[in-house]
Amino acid sequence: MYNTGMSERIDDLQYKGLKLIQDTDLFCFGTDAVLLASFCEVKSRDTIVDLGTGTGIIPVLLSGRNDSAKLIGLELQPAAAGIAKRNAELNGLTDRFRVICGNIKEAKSLINSRVTAVVCNPPYEKVGSGGVSLSDAVRIARHEVECTLADVADAAASLLDTAGRFYMIHRAARTAEIIFELKSRRLEPKRMRFIQSRAGAEPGYVLIKAVKDASPGIEVAPPLIIYDENGETEEVKQIYHRK
Amino acid sequence: MYNTGMSERIDDLQYKGLKLIQDTDLFCFGTDAVLLASFCEVKSRDTIVDLGTGTGIIPVLLSGRNDSAKLIGLELQPAAAGIAKRNAELNGLTDRFRVICGNIKEAKSLINSRVTAVVCNPPYEKVGSGGVSLSDAVRIARHEVECTLADVADAAASLLDTAGRFYMIHRAARTAEIIFELKSRRLEPKRMRFIQSRAGAEPGYVLIKAVKDASPGIEVAPPLIIYDENGETEEVKQIYHRK
Repeated sequence: MYNTGMSERIDDLQYKGLKLIQDTDLFCFGTDAVLLASFCEVKSRDTIVDLGTGTGIIPVLLSGRNDSAKLIGLELQPAAAGIAKRNAELNGLTDRFRVICGNIKEAKSLINSRVTAVVCNPPYEKVGSGGVSLSDAVRIARHEVECTLADVADAAASLLDTAGRFYMIHRAARTAEIIFELKSRRLEPKRMRFIQSRAGAEPGYVLIKAVKDASPGIEVAPPLIIYDENGETEEVKQIYHRK
Repeated sequence: MYNTGMSERIDDLQYKGLKLIQDTDLFCFGTDAVLLASFCEVKSRDTIVDLGTGTGIIPVLLSGRNDSAKLIGLELQPAAAGIAKRNAELNGLTDRFRVICGNIKEAKSLINSRVTAVVCNPPYEKVGSGGVSLSDAVRIARHEVECTLADVADAAASLLDTAGRFYMIHRAARTAEIIFELKSRRLEPKRMRFIQSRAGAEPGYVLIKAVKDASPGIEVAPPLIIYDENGETEEVKQIYHRK
């Protein structure tokens, strides 16, 4: 970590030399973004849109997975979008990571190019829940103020053609709502993985992949366990490139 | 096990003295029925309908959980329904376990009494899959010939009032379809538990509870693990009353 002054800092992502500017007054990325990026498949001819990209953590991580995939980050908040653009520059990605400042409700018109995959680490909390003293920036990032599950599903469905892929992480408690919103828009859930802090614990989060116009039938993967008696599990260490 | 002649046998369920006549030419109950009965809550004022009861294994098991809950088994195939009636007699349950022979598509008119919960261990296979040389009786019990997911959801939704509960077991691969069919009929998925043969294995089956007109939000329980290095897990032994 290197402080750039004010509330900014630069984190070394410990992966292929990638770095990330973050602003601690806004919202710093967490384990969920790393797990979602790891869950997302990246192909050479992909153009992947990250809905609500924040400072761009997910496109930056995905850039390390494939040298030619194109990445687009859509972010409502200008301060975060500005940092995302600087993160594209910092990592030498300006030729393939484009940042657009705008509302996901206008995703289709803002992104007028062919999209093969959409990824989203959305706000988890319903409006009205959680703390009330948060700044507007953090409130928008964390709560469904500007971005409900239906908004996310609408945006993904509008951007994707048949066989286009959608990847999301969310609270496990929202699983039924997510599946319903996706299926209602011909985004067929095809793979799902729950995340448990420990073996035997209730899953806290779920990773879901959907494919536009696919036939029904979902692969439910074994749960991803974060910790065991030795600390982080081997799988989580691999996701974080710590071994 | 005691052979009654022909293809019939009587199994001791090893639980509160309950017994079950089965016909090996029809379809014998499996672990899924036992796990579903265990997942189902039973309350004193309940009237619980088992859709596609077969020889009545689920109502017989549920009868041991509560002394006053009323049970109704609906079964399409007369031979199985006949055995279910004899199982009600064999276990002294004729005053509270009623068997109706009929199609679940007519569940509402066949069962003209108040129902508080519905349970279903449906056919798992889509028509056209699996072996083709099965007898009609086994084919109907295992395949969605006479009973699709939509039929089951229609029947449950028609039988239940607000706050009525629905419990089902199915292949994990059908999870997204189940959730969609239930939510489409105001049966809100409220609890879900995947079943894994071993820790780290892909879940093969899922248990789902839905509640009519409930608010969204689902509790995802830790997976039920069947075997560990010592054979059956302690939890499965408890479900089978083997300890």
